[in-house]
Amino acid sequence: MGKLLIVGTVAFDAIETPFGKTDKILGGAATFIGLAASQFDVDSAIVSVVGEDFPEEYLNLLTSKNIDLSSLEIVKGGKTFFWEGKYHNDLNSRDTITTELNVLADFNPVVPENFKDANVVMLGNLHPSVQMSVIKQMDKKPDLIILDTMNFWMDNALEELKGVIKEIDILTINDEEARQLTGEYSLVKAASTILKMGPKYLVIKKGEHGALLFHDDKVFFAPALPLEEVFDPTGAGDTFAGGFSGYLAATKNTSFNNLKNAVIHGSNLASFSVEKFGTERMENLQRDEVNKRLHQFKTLTQFDIEL
Amino acid sequence: MGKLLIVGTVAFDAIETPFGKTDKILGGAATFIGLAASQFDVDSAIVSVVGEDFPEEYLNLLTSKNIDLSSLEIVKGGKTFFWEGKYHNDLNSRDTITTELNVLADFNPVVPENFKDANVVMLGNLHPSVQMSVIKQMDKKPDLIILDTMNFWMDNALEELKGVIKEIDILTINDEEARQLTGEYSLVKAASTILKMGPKYLVIKKGEHGALLFHDDKVFFAPALPLEEVFDPTGAGDTFAGGFSGYLAATKNTSFNNLKNAVIHGSNLASFSVEKFGTERMENLQRDEVNKRLHQFKTLTQFDIEL
Repeated sequence: MGKLLIVGTVAFDAIETPFGKTDKILGGAATFIGLAASQFDVDSAIVSVVGEDFPEEYLNLLTSKNIDLSSLEIVKGGKTFFWEGKYHNDLNSRDTITTELNVLADFNPVVPENFKDANVVMLGNLHPSVQMSVIKQMDKKPDLIILDTMNFWMDNALEELKGVIKEIDILTINDEEARQLTGEYSLVKAASTILKMGPKYLVIKKGEHGALLFHDDKVFFAPALPLEEVFDPTGAGDTFAGGFSGYLAATKNTSFNNLKNAVIHGSNLASFSVEKFGTERMENLQRDEVNKRLHQFKTLTQFDIEL
Repeated sequence: MGKLLIVGTVAFDAIETPFGKTDKILGGAATFIGLAASQFDVDSAIVSVVGEDFPEEYLNLLTSKNIDLSSLEIVKGGKTFFWEGKYHNDLNSRDTITTELNVLADFNPVVPENFKDANVVMLGNLHPSVQMSVIKQMDKKPDLIILDTMNFWMDNALEELKGVIKEIDILTINDEEARQLTGEYSLVKAASTILKMGPKYLVIKKGEHGALLFHDDKVFFAPALPLEEVFDPTGAGDTFAGGFSGYLAATKNTSFNNLKNAVIHGSNLASFSVEKFGTERMENLQRDEVNKRLHQFKTLTQFDIEL
């Protein structure tokens, strides 16, 4: 069985969309990644930190999905990372109302012994120095190190970020971040620049407009499934990353063709995640629902022109 | 051989993009549609109007592409429709500097006798009453009537537009126009509403984000080819329409699967159109270049997940 090491936030989110509002609910990049990856036959572990206020119910949910939490540090007397945001009417943009780092401010990741040989490492969005520390703790070079990041680190820790990017195999960022990182408006040119910075593969996430996979001079595109209603986009990108990395860990195949499949699986799972608030839709997602929607992805994109 | 009847503007454009600026050059919806459709084995005719200032060189270009111009009215002493526009830096939006209707103000379309039995009619963006007049002149019901329109007619001639939409088989509009026409933000919901207004098929064009084809409860998506550089987006939508309608006229097959192919052919040709100013790239486009890029579309979108 494949082994997936997940590093990222485990958090509380409070979300407001045009459709409603939540109190503090379960959130965090590693949470979404773990839930999505649990759709595949993979042993996974989350390296993260929470406070003493983090409910046992949430811990139980994650362990019930075969996610090893032995390196999820619980800080005595500490408070869990908290993010509060409000989406605009078109759901394509949002305002951050509150960010409380809390225990995340002093996070020192410790990779569990039995995951130091993980075949895939998924580094969720965190300070580049935390991501680098995890890479250095691995006993053997993983088949794939995948890194997600965001514009905040480009603004505030660019050199450290570039250092980590040199060490990884796949970078996943959104279109605006690809432009910011390279100064190129054309995503094709941005991709070409990024592939010279270290990674063999690049995934550019375009939200409702799908995702692009770049490798050498090849490019593959997966659309987002057109949905009747997007309810809450929170965690869609992390769910994508979880489906993408979980599939790759389970299949142990790093060919371009298999990465294409991983992008489709990631997009497929992200299409569920946005249907309900937070992690709600992913918590009880059944494999037959997932497979049914994969069929829709085929219908959506496959054609028959003879060449 | 298939017969394609094209109705739309033949015009002068003056274009400014971040990459340069043109004087008055050849433009117009029918021009781009005709040039794109000429990539297929199809007899086509343009119904339109120009002024006496329209250069013979442009007429010769169109007739050299097997486009019948016997119903292109040349108004003695009249001036050709003129549009001047300037694109913003991201090329996704533009300002109209000048619109001179000129001879278009009194345009009375006359369908040539030998095209009254055309199997496909492509109604480019024009006043809905002009589009309706063409439909009424057809001797027999065409296999497909395709209509392109824009927000201007939704603002200024909505009831007439709805009347034409009732009579057609395929509507092609962009995402914002689909939202305006239906009051639905979700494109899936907008499509469902539009398919109840008359058309059997709907194409929603999303520019650099591709195009969606809707039919009953089915949906197909074609991405735009990721390009190193978009030089001038003018005419991309019309080139798409020309490739789409030209392929359908040539293949005489109105199945959903063949419409998928038509969307791919349209997207493929549009990817060339934006590489140079105005019609320049389309004027000398070779079929082997077109086929080569179709291969890229396959690589871009096709995957192999066993279900």
